Amino acid sequence: MSGKIEAHLESLGITLPAAASPVANYVPFLRTGDHLFISGQLSKAIDGTLISGHLGDNLTVADGQAAARAAALNILAQVQLALGSLDSVAQIVRLNGFVAATPAFTDHPQVINGASDLMVEIFAERGRHTRAAIGVTSLPLGCAVEIDAIVKVAET
Amino acid sequence: MSGKIEAHLESLGITLPAAASPVANYVPFLRTGDHLFISGQLSKAIDGTLISGHLGDNLTVADGQAAARAAALNILAQVQLALGSLDSVAQIVRLNGFVAATPAFTDHPQVINGASDLMVEIFAERGRHTRAAIGVTSLPLGCAVEIDAIVKVAET
Amino acid sequence: MSGKIEAHLESLGITLPAAASPVANYVPFLRTGDHLFISGQLSKAIDGTLISGHLGDNLTVADGQAAARAAALNILAQVQLALGSLDSVAQIVRLNGFVAATPAFTDHPQVINGASDLMVEIFAERGRHTRAAIGVTSLPLGCAVEIDAIVKVAET
Repeated sequence: MSGKIEAHLESLGITLPAAASPVANYVPFLRTGDHLFISGQLSKAIDGTLISGHLGDNLTVADGQAAARAAALNILAQVQLALGSLDSVAQIVRLNGFVAATPAFTDHPQVINGASDLMVEIFAERGRHTRAAIGVTSLPLGCAVEIDAIVKVAET
Repeated sequence: MSGKIEAHLESLGITLPAAASPVANYVPFLRTGDHLFISGQLSKAIDGTLISGHLGDNLTVADGQAAARAAALNILAQVQLALGSLDSVAQIVRLNGFVAATPAFTDHPQVINGASDLMVEIFAERGRHTRAAIGVTSLPLGCAVEIDAIVKVAET
Repeated sequence: MSGKIEAHLESLGITLPAAASPVANYVPFLRTGDHLFISGQLSKAIDGTLISGHLGDNLTVADGQAAARAAALNILAQVQLALGSLDSVAQIVRLNGFVAATPAFTDHPQVINGASDLMVEIFAERGRHTRAAIGVTSLPLGCAVEIDAIVKVAET
């Protein structure tokens, strides 16, 4: 926790959660060349509470945005663990945002903005990523949002 | 609109839509090395009409194919904006095709063929991509199909 | 079928299915640089039987794990066809696991472990991948699990 981005996080009042350990035969991150792949991260708050439910049913768009932001913070925790400091992020290349949602729900973009806005708040231009926002039936543990990522690593 | 592929498009009678601007803190395309990532594009027709609904409910497979083709045209509009000309496409590497569908629906491949066939019609071998076809609960704005892409850029 | 991994497969009693041919204008695999993209593979058993249904409805978690393992075997059949031998796999980089599931289903990770465990059983450290596990409405042909992959190819 020693880089410029970490100092920026502190000035924003943002604390990263502990990076979640995978509970099976996979890894939370893997680097190939200058790209870092991050496994799907769940909408778990920093106190460990799961943000669960379905958009269009028992969750509001604001709930969904908070869930997406929580998933994005879990992504950043993995990136920091992988790279040592968030300063080594050259670019957030890709976010795939999966939203547990009903068939009638239509505001997936607003939900995933909870993650996208965080990335730009933290990394500015380096945080502006491509993305997809998709409404799905259900997610692990009943969580509301799952997001995975591809990050380009700065040359050192 | 000046390349060989653009001339081929004209001979096929295909007009690309205007590239959609993102409405949030993300970008429609991003290049990293020789790969271009395209954000999820919706099934919006060239006149701006959204092709909405669910396969297995109020849309036929033919409707879905038209939706997939419309999403693919929006991908190509982004690729053209990113690269200047579609001649700079070395290979369509990947399409992820998400189809708003009921639990009983089974014809996702036929739906996504609306996009795949277009790519091969336009780019021939360079258009033959890997893909996944997935049935989801709902998509942004209620659209029927969303497709994202990874494109390899030709060395220049 | 001549490499060390193929011999390891034989010692494990694992037989790969025949690599499925795509039925449309796409390809089952595509290499770009040292990465091999594999199209979404379905939960089809080696005898050609489709493992179909929905988790949380008519399939148990054990059924889902068998489906995920079957999809993963189909991925490996494509990798072997693409590279000649599984010995050319440097790393399984990414698995996206899509599970046909009801809204109330929560055990997607356990289901996709059927694929993840197989990769590590076969490739040990080189098989430890990033992944996402997602519950979707429906999948092609009604199959229970679809998995796609990105594989890093060993330099030769």
